[in-house]
Amino acid sequence: MLTILVVHVENHPGVLNRVASLFRRRGFNIESLAVGRTEKPGFSRMTIVVDTDEGGATRLEANLYKLVEVLQVDNLTSAAALCRDLAIIKVNLKPESRRELLELARDLGARVLRETSEYLMLEATETEDKIDSLVERLSGYGILEMARTGRVAMRY
Amino acid sequence: MLTILVVHVENHPGVLNRVASLFRRRGFNIESLAVGRTEKPGFSRMTIVVDTDEGGATRLEANLYKLVEVLQVDNLTSAAALCRDLAIIKVNLKPESRRELLELARDLGARVLRETSEYLMLEATETEDKIDSLVERLSGYGILEMARTGRVAMRY
Repeated sequence: MLTILVVHVENHPGVLNRVASLFRRRGFNIESLAVGRTEKPGFSRMTIVVDTDEGGATRLEANLYKLVEVLQVDNLTSAAALCRDLAIIKVNLKPESRRELLELARDLGARVLRETSEYLMLEATETEDKIDSLVERLSGYGILEMARTGRVAMRY
Repeated sequence: MLTILVVHVENHPGVLNRVASLFRRRGFNIESLAVGRTEKPGFSRMTIVVDTDEGGATRLEANLYKLVEVLQVDNLTSAAALCRDLAIIKVNLKPESRRELLELARDLGARVLRETSEYLMLEATETEDKIDSLVERLSGYGILEMARTGRVAMRY
């Protein structure tokens, strides 16, 4: 089961290392991680997606709170929350498929960041599964490169 | 100086821990980190922003290559590359400022994800400094919560 934890931490050097090493020691594999600044200077917010059950999530929360830099852990797995993921995708462009590709991108909510004679660079911010289906649809044209952030989640 | 490294890794358990601990041991503080899947199953792509000079970046690259899971390190600091950052921002909403706030969001390229009687939830994908100025403009209305991914970067 995919568990989504939002962890608020003080932005000290080494805090990422301590969080990652906690997951590692306890045998949890991090599926995705997004770390960024928050509304408060000096604090970071991590959205961590990890494959574990309810018991595992409870243990993780308790262990995270043992780290002095951790201020708050919020489990959003079953909460009413919004999840978004950013993907930048470079797709192979051929003159004969240009129009079709642009229409497909538009229909699936992707924005064109750059177009050259060789590729289209697209951007999409969506839920994970919508991005997955965009990627699947684009793969027929040839995906040259893709970069995705981990998910960010926020309670409604 | 902010250095942007794109690191391609095999998606093994513990790889994040090893990368984070390398930065920690060498005394580099990670400014932002985005880890996500790539076009190849089983591989992850990390965009790491770190405050260091050219010499530091060269040492970091050499040390990253010592990790068996690291396949490629690409320094995009002075490269022609696109950088994007995703922010989800919950802004306090008052009836009298609703129209102004919606106009401001539209002018600054933010998209409305949800509107309630209490708040507006906005999403923006932009370069870091554009998001910074959006945040600054919104802060007058009261930012209730903000989540940002680290930067993702890709060569043109």
